Amino acid sequence: MRVVRFVTTPQETPRYGSLDEAGTTVCELRSPPWLGLEPGPGRWPLAAVTLLAPVEPPDVIAIGLNYREHAAESQLKLPAAPVIFLKATSSVIGPDAPILLPRMAPDEVDAEAELAIVIGTTCHQVTAAAAADYIFGYTCANDVSARDCQLRQDAQWARGKSFDTFCPLGPWIDTDFTPETAHVQLRVNSELWQDGATTDMLFDCHTLVSYCSQVMTLRPGTVILTGTPPGVGFARTPPRFLHANEVVEVTITGLATLRNPVAAF
Amino acid sequence: MRVVRFVTTPQETPRYGSLDEAGTTVCELRSPPWLGLEPGPGRWPLAAVTLLAPVEPPDVIAIGLNYREHAAESQLKLPAAPVIFLKATSSVIGPDAPILLPRMAPDEVDAEAELAIVIGTTCHQVTAAAAADYIFGYTCANDVSARDCQLRQDAQWARGKSFDTFCPLGPWIDTDFTPETAHVQLRVNSELWQDGATTDMLFDCHTLVSYCSQVMTLRPGTVILTGTPPGVGFARTPPRFLHANEVVEVTITGLATLRNPVAAF
Repeated sequence: MRVVRFVTTPQETPRYGSLDEAGTTVCELRSPPWLGLEPGPGRWPLAAVTLLAPVEPPDVIAIGLNYREHAAESQLKLPAAPVIFLKATSSVIGPDAPILLPRMAPDEVDAEAELAIVIGTTCHQVTAAAAADYIFGYTCANDVSARDCQLRQDAQWARGKSFDTFCPLGPWIDTDFTPETAHVQLRVNSELWQDGATTDMLFDCHTLVSYCSQVMTLRPGTVILTGTPPGVGFARTPPRFLHANEVVEVTITGLATLRNPVAAF
Repeated sequence: MRVVRFVTTPQETPRYGSLDEAGTTVCELRSPPWLGLEPGPGRWPLAAVTLLAPVEPPDVIAIGLNYREHAAESQLKLPAAPVIFLKATSSVIGPDAPILLPRMAPDEVDAEAELAIVIGTTCHQVTAAAAADYIFGYTCANDVSARDCQLRQDAQWARGKSFDTFCPLGPWIDTDFTPETAHVQLRVNSELWQDGATTDMLFDCHTLVSYCSQVMTLRPGTVILTGTPPGVGFARTPPRFLHANEVVEVTITGLATLRNPVAAF
């Protein structure tokens, strides 16, 4: 099942829905999908609704340096355990919403294509073997990062990764997706920047859920960004950053493409 | 006004309430207080309710090294701008709830007494002069930290500061509190560890709201921990950490005392 969150007019309260097999019709769900998948009466053509981020996460956990080749391009040692950081939940946006270049730091905004895990059932201290039982599904994420803040100005990554609009999620949560052999790609104006495979992950998705659950209780809707493959802008030769009017696409094979334009604030 | 969040039985949905002038009776509020202060019909003796964290923050922002003397005891340079980090919202607990020593890192758990700002009105890119208009009130916070994770194992502070129970808040939000000249104290088993004054803050509360609002949209209920004064456990001679059965108290003069016992997980 592919789960979306949407509005049909800008004013209304967002609803959850499921996308039909053809991918053309949205069927309303009566509740957040982790509470039940009972359909409501509403049906709309996909083209007639505005998709929002498919989840409102209570926390956005992110994992640094989880692809061997990205750690290498960042000239950083492979970590012995997952590197946890947090993005502010206020940074979450949906598909097609603009990534805004922050006034405070507009010059070195970079993108990171990531596979995101969405938790479905509260869990704490679960094993990797049991982790699948607590995962609702997967979606595409973009861990947008102001590199000047992240890498030069601040020792902590929180600010550089938490500006408004810096966490695009979507377009939907796929409950049937299997993450083991997906390709994770980033394109900027159709140019391929990142291209990696989840087989290059240091810690796989189930291990990440288990590790994070040793630290904190993971609640329904909690999102875990699983790290990014090589090819990000700051590590390119010469370095590349995002500019207004560019379009950024995160594509995960077998899942979806998350597309966001870039705009000045 | 002093705003609390509470239950009268463990099963019921938490409600907001206000504490009367005598500090003995809780009067129900019909909505979260930033949406209106209309009283509901319920009245209970304070002693008959269980106080919860007075807010469920959508984000917990924290500020590092914001007291000159704490930066000195940490042997760190004074920052030129506020040092922002995030704590997971899953770490929030209320007064009297136990701080649990995490299984993953039980040995160097430390406490930090902090004044916390609670945002009342959505704001973005506000000036320090206008910040007071967006602050709902203030409460006591304890920025509990596993120093082994924070200072030796991880470069990012998120894990060491986000274990379950690592963000006690409460006992209430005081809407009339003025933060300019308060004393912020930490006691462990009645022994005074920290004793500082908000006059020692590098960046005052209004400046912090303004700065954070340049980065992210601050929504009602967002909490900003404003940094900690000198005297934390790891910087003592010899270093001191929390142990099961100790009691930790954060006292802010003119505001309240936030008391939490310590327990093994």
